[in-house]
Amino acid sequence: MRLLLTNDDGIYAPGICALYDALIEEHEVIVVAPEAERSAVGHAITLSDPLRVKKIKAGRQFLGFAINGTPADCVKIAIHELIGRDIDMVISGINRGANVGINVLYSGTVSAATEGAILGYKALAFSLNSYKDPDFCFASNFASQFINSLKDMDINGICLNINIPDLPPHKIRGIKITRQNISPFIEKFEKRVDPHGNVYYWQTGEIIREDEPEDVDTRALREGYISITPIHHDLTYYPAFAKMKYWNINIDDFSLA
Amino acid sequence: MRLLLTNDDGIYAPGICALYDALIEEHEVIVVAPEAERSAVGHAITLSDPLRVKKIKAGRQFLGFAINGTPADCVKIAIHELIGRDIDMVISGINRGANVGINVLYSGTVSAATEGAILGYKALAFSLNSYKDPDFCFASNFASQFINSLKDMDINGICLNINIPDLPPHKIRGIKITRQNISPFIEKFEKRVDPHGNVYYWQTGEIIREDEPEDVDTRALREGYISITPIHHDLTYYPAFAKMKYWNINIDDFSLA
Repeated sequence: MRLLLTNDDGIYAPGICALYDALIEEHEVIVVAPEAERSAVGHAITLSDPLRVKKIKAGRQFLGFAINGTPADCVKIAIHELIGRDIDMVISGINRGANVGINVLYSGTVSAATEGAILGYKALAFSLNSYKDPDFCFASNFASQFINSLKDMDINGICLNINIPDLPPHKIRGIKITRQNISPFIEKFEKRVDPHGNVYYWQTGEIIREDEPEDVDTRALREGYISITPIHHDLTYYPAFAKMKYWNINIDDFSLA
Repeated sequence: MRLLLTNDDGIYAPGICALYDALIEEHEVIVVAPEAERSAVGHAITLSDPLRVKKIKAGRQFLGFAINGTPADCVKIAIHELIGRDIDMVISGINRGANVGINVLYSGTVSAATEGAILGYKALAFSLNSYKDPDFCFASNFASQFINSLKDMDINGICLNINIPDLPPHKIRGIKITRQNISPFIEKFEKRVDPHGNVYYWQTGEIIREDEPEDVDTRALREGYISITPIHHDLTYYPAFAKMKYWNINIDDFSLA
């Protein structure tokens, strides 16, 4: 297959390197990724600044392109300008740290894959649930086999958000198809004072763990399963229509002087 | 009511000022907005840099807080640190330029309101379909009346994405409840060479207009209606589950050396 590989930790991050190494044995892999870390950028795109493109080599081998933009920028410019439309999948990751629950909204990793889905491709986002000294060996091995298993499946236009526990292979309990946990975070802003006497805040947050339903991504991952959530880019909240039908808002009721 | 007002064009943008002026006559309005323009940032949040907060006055009157972060940051820090949880609505805008179709994914304006919805509030994003010399007079007048009409409605936790045509009031044809148009853009990357001989790209794009279904946001707006789309933050693509049920992916089928 011909695969577009991107991420949000930057083109030199260990997670994308491990996945590249696992995929290049069987596939053509073109990397188009941010030149530096662009975590938590969500679905940002760059409109007010020009994008620049650097060709990157690994040793004497062409590896791909580094972009001074967001993960979503990378997928767009890759397909529209750099490598053409003839690819089989858009793959994002492996991210350092899980992208589950409300975090999915903030994830550059998932947004890059979503961009692939918008353009009609098979699209996969891989994240490893580890921040400290992550070992991408198992995750990249799993990812590469999983990608092969999708070759003939009809999942074009859907993004699969895949989160892998940071456990030794024999401790992984299985694979679960999940839905996104939409419980809000416990958000925290840690207030500090800089050496010049000015106040600043560090933003942190954690997912609320009580009452996690059986079928959500956060719980599957916590219990040692690989979590796979199908993600879509239609943000319309269809259940609201039933309620809104009775709204009877009419432009003539507004005084529009 | 006690209203949190934010945007993505920055705290000094004409659109937020017009809406503030329209709302302050009847409500308590606290502005917490980015100190400078943060358009197309999508649902980005700031984790790797500290957030700083500046108190802003309009004349001798307290207006609110300027934040060196994204629209989503503004809503989070407002509610968790600056103004407390006791508010009735989160309002974002009025944005300069429409936020319809796939653009909704990239919109800081909508993401700020979505953040309000995640936290359980009534949440509204207002955008005016105009880039050149916009007149926010009608839009802010409409917005303020519309906000009043929602006071007793049960829409907590839903974000309403409201787009207003840039037309004289008598030419506005009505109000339509719509869904997000998910047709992809016609994307363009305009390639240029800087004075130093280096290539760079400007990203642009427009929505494909053919075959616009009757009930989508882009079409309602184009035809002169005010478009209201209910938006949700659960990205799970539920229709995919029916297909994935038959996948039969089993961890034991992977060789996980």
